[in-house]
This record gives sequence, C-alpha cells and structure tokens, in this order.
Amino acid sequence: MNTNMTYLVTGAAGFIGSALAKRLLIEGNKVITIDNLSTGFETAIPEGVEFFKGDCQDYSIVKQLEKYSFDAIFHIAGQSSGEISFDDPVYDLQTNAQSTLLLLKLALKTNCKKFIYASTMSVYGDQPDHKVNEEAMLKPKSFYGVGKVASEHYLRIYQQYGIQSTAMRLFNVYGPGQNLKNLRQGMVSIFLAMALNDKTICVKGDKNRFRDFVYIDDIVDAFINSLELNTPVFKIYNVCSGIKTTIETLINSILSNIQKNINVEYSGSTPGDQFGIYGDNTLIKKDLNWSPKISFMEGISNMVNWASNLK
Amino acid sequence: MNTNMTYLVTGAAGFIGSALAKRLLIEGNKVITIDNLSTGFETAIPEGVEFFKGDCQDYSIVKQLEKYSFDAIFHIAGQSSGEISFDDPVYDLQTNAQSTLLLLKLALKTNCKKFIYASTMSVYGDQPDHKVNEEAMLKPKSFYGVGKVASEHYLRIYQQYGIQSTAMRLFNVYGPGQNLKNLRQGMVSIFLAMALNDKTICVKGDKNRFRDFVYIDDIVDAFINSLELNTPVFKIYNVCSGIKTTIETLINSILSNIQKNINVEYSGSTPGDQFGIYGDNTLIKKDLNWSPKISFMEGISNMVNWASNLK
Repeated sequence: MNTNMTYLVTGAAGFIGSALAKRLLIEGNKVITIDNLSTGFETAIPEGVEFFKGDCQDYSIVKQLEKYSFDAIFHIAGQSSGEISFDDPVYDLQTNAQSTLLLLKLALKTNCKKFIYASTMSVYGDQPDHKVNEEAMLKPKSFYGVGKVASEHYLRIYQQYGIQSTAMRLFNVYGPGQNLKNLRQGMVSIFLAMALNDKTICVKGDKNRFRDFVYIDDIVDAFINSLELNTPVFKIYNVCSGIKTTIETLINSILSNIQKNINVEYSGSTPGDQFGIYGDNTLIKKDLNWSPKISFMEGISNMVNWASNLK
Repeated sequence: MNTNMTYLVTGAAGFIGSALAKRLLIEGNKVITIDNLSTGFETAIPEGVEFFKGDCQDYSIVKQLEKYSFDAIFHIAGQSSGEISFDDPVYDLQTNAQSTLLLLKLALKTNCKKFIYASTMSVYGDQPDHKVNEEAMLKPKSFYGVGKVASEHYLRIYQQYGIQSTAMRLFNVYGPGQNLKNLRQGMVSIFLAMALNDKTICVKGDKNRFRDFVYIDDIVDAFINSLELNTPVFKIYNVCSGIKTTIETLINSILSNIQKNINVEYSGSTPGDQFGIYGDNTLIKKDLNWSPKISFMEGISNMVNWASNLK
C-alpha cells in the first residue's frame, strides 16, 4: 500500500475505526479522526492520530477539517447497533446518514477523490436462505439499516462529482478490541462478555439463527485493499466469509475456549433482528483480491484469549 | 368513503395537500394540517382546516398534535423537487425522512392505525425503457429520492407496531393549483408558466425524455381510495397512468392550448433528472380499484384554462 498519505478515519475510538487507524499509522501515514466518544473510548484512539471530538453530523466539527487535504476518507463512525437504533431513530438517521452527507461535502470541498464507507449487512433485512449478493433487494429491518441504505445512495449520487466511493457491507465483525461492556452491540462480544462475567449466556432469539462472522484483521485488510480500486464508479462489496454459522455454533465455539461451566438460556427476541444471513463474497475476492485469512475457530480462540487476559 | 373522521394532512398549503384536504372537508371530515409555508401558500389551505405552522421534522410542532385522535395521517409535506434537493441535501433529509419518523411516532402515540405517504417515482432513478413496477431496484438520482426511500423503509418497519402504511409513488402530478411561480418544481407548471409569462419555453434537457403524467384530481382519488385498504401490511403503489409521454409531446400539448407564438429552446440539463420513466399501474388498479379518469389532453386543457384565467 501507499505510505505518507493523509487519511480521515471517522470513529477511531471505536472497534473498527481504531484497528484501521492503527494499521494506517503503522504503514507510515498521517491519520485524522472525528469521534464523539459516545460508545468509543479515547484510549482506543491510537497514539499519533489527530483527534477532533464531536459528531460527524455536526457541521461545526466537520468544517474544521477543511484545512486538510485527504487522500481518502474512511467513514466508519456511527451508531452501529440495529437494536439500539430503535431507542432514537432520529438520532440514528443523523449519525448514520446526515454525517455521510457532510463528509461527502467535505470531500468535494477539499478535493478528496476517494470515500470508503462502513456499510452493513443490515441493509439486506431478511433474505431467502442462500448466500446474499450485492444485487439483492434491500429491506432493512432496523432504523440503523435504513440510515446505511440512505448513505449508500448518497455515495452513488456523489460519483458524478468525481468522488469514487466504495460501500463495504460488513457482516458480523468480531475480534480483540470489541467492546465487552456494551451488551447491546456485537453478537460475539455480547455472548463472550456474558460468559466471562455472569457464567450465563442469555440469548435473545432462536439458536438456529445464523450469521457470517468476519475477524477484525480481515476487515482492516478489506478497507486497505479498497484503496487500490481503480475505477471512477461507486462500488459495493459484501465483506464476509461466505460461511453460514448458527448462533448455537458460535456459542459452542466460545464455550469450548473457556474452561468454565456456563449456562445458556434462550428467550425473547431483539427488535430489528434478522433471522439469518450470510454473504456471497465473489465480488470482493475478484475486485479487491481479498479473502478472509482468519478462520472462525482461530478468530474465536484469539478473542477469548484476549478477553480472558483483560480480566 | 367515511365521513366524520379526523385526518392529519401535512402540507395542506401545497399543491397536493391542499387538494386532498379540500376533498376530505367536502366529504364531511375534520382536517388538521402542519405546513411550514416554505413553498406553499397560507391562502391555499382550505377554509376549515386547523393549521399548525411549522416543520414536520420539528418535534415541538408535532408534539402539539398529540391531543388529536387521527383516523389516518396523510404525510404529504416535504420539499418536493429533485433539483432543489441538491441545494441543501441535509435539509432535504430532514424534511423528507426525519419528518416521517416523527409522524410515525405520533401515530403510535395517538393510536392512529393508518398512515398514507406521498412517495415518488424519483425513488426509481433511471430504469430500462419499459413500465416500471413496484418491485424494481431503487436507484434514486437525487437527495430528494433518497429521503423518500428512507421514509418508505420506516413505514415498513412500523408495520410491526400495528400501523398500516401505504406509500403512494406519485409520478408527474399536474393540474390547476400547481405553483406557477416556482420554476424549479413541477414539469408541467414550469413550462406553462414560461409559455404564459415569457413567450419562450426553456427546456433543460432532451426533448425525447419521457414521463408519466397524472392529473391532480386522480391523485386525490388515489389517496382517498387508499383509506379503504384492508390489510395489516405495508403497501406500495405506483400512482401513474401507465402512458409514456415525451417532453416534446407535453410542450406541443401546452402550445396547442395557447393561442400565442411561443419559442421553445432546448439546452443543458437538470441535476438528478431521470431520463425517462413511466409506470405500471396494475397493482393500484387491482387493490385500490383506481385508474386515472382525466386524460392527458383533457388535463392539460383544464390546466391551461385555469392558468390563463389567473392572469
């Protein structure tokens, strides 16, 4: 990859933004971030990152970045839980869609030609039980998913101004660095935190639901590879393993890595929860030469080790 | 239709909201409106309508309506030009999407079970040259279209709370009452105003572009019929004639009704303009027993007569 570049990574106090910022710094680039610290932690912002505290949907914050000349903008910030989006849908729209408008305008004003966006598999909603590809009809089930759909449309509209955008539809991201204190965001981190803290995993929903899990390092790789994309048009990629993993399998994998007796209880459901989804990664493999390197078993083992050592 | 009902019609100072409110009043119902008068006129609000001045995306305004018990909410208000949405995309998101969230919340709070929404053919963007139906992939080309897409998703999500919503995807609406002072909104009214005032019609874009025109009275009929829909699920309908009319045909129709020499000049283009679109109205014919009653020739003649007598 290129070095000595200047990148904006919004949300560098969060799980994904922090990992991406760290990688970009290590490769010898300058990184600037905006983060409101609403769910992220200032301590997670890698040393060396220039930090602007505030909302990406706040023009007075975004305006301060007009002095930079960014080689690319990675827009990662935003409320990231479907469930939590039901608490305050208006806030969710602002954090997940209005923010994108302001940052695209910033890109235009500062002559930044590349915009990479953390979208989500939540844009799909419930789909037939086969690998979903990027052409599927979008039926988001949460307000969170709706804001991400709107942002994707904004990226497409902005391509007429010469800004090449890429929407990375992230499937279930997990790994070291995920917030174990937030029991409403991140399926793996929620179950793992319950297992370590309470010795009981309470699952809201069916054990036969399924997901497609992707390890944080692979996610960072995908973002980095997207910088090499040489096209003027808006692109959308599923960032996923292509492997269907049930909730039951996930829980068994966590349990097999923990040397304790853990109860598992199933009850209720979660607002905006998709029953099952896994993705087709043909397109990202072909265009970005990306495929996940960390298997689910290895990733869960790494994450349990990391979490156990935190205690 | 039912009488003695209480309806909220947002945007009753505007072209469509005003016509709908008038019809509902004539049928013996109570009508309340919110309008910010940003493009509508207070004089267009039919006498007898209770008027709250302000934005539908402003919670302090919407909250004042919690004292009512609405039989249905018709959400018609909102910036309605694709072109104008490029001036201030953030405002457009608020007026066209955030407003819907607040009104859906109002519906939930006041136990209103029916929500009818003025969506648009702009959600489709460019489509292959055949009648577009409601299942088409959405690729809006304007920020206006994106806000409408988001709102449709919100309506679908809210069906789980027992609110039956209907999105009416209005194609090119025209007719008496349309604002002849706004030269950036409403294809028919723009060309007609130019013809009457300037003796030159300046067309931004190709004469072979095409649209599907629907007369205002037919639009009102469609909204009224939607009240009879008996289903718990979210519905989407194209409100269109199914007839493809080119810009050239539209202009010739206007000219043939005006006894003056008018120049026509073609140049440039309009941001977010769709090249051509016309709709399939099979679904609304079947479910709502609706079809347009006013032919294009009759409608244009009515409108030219109306506009000529204004002068």
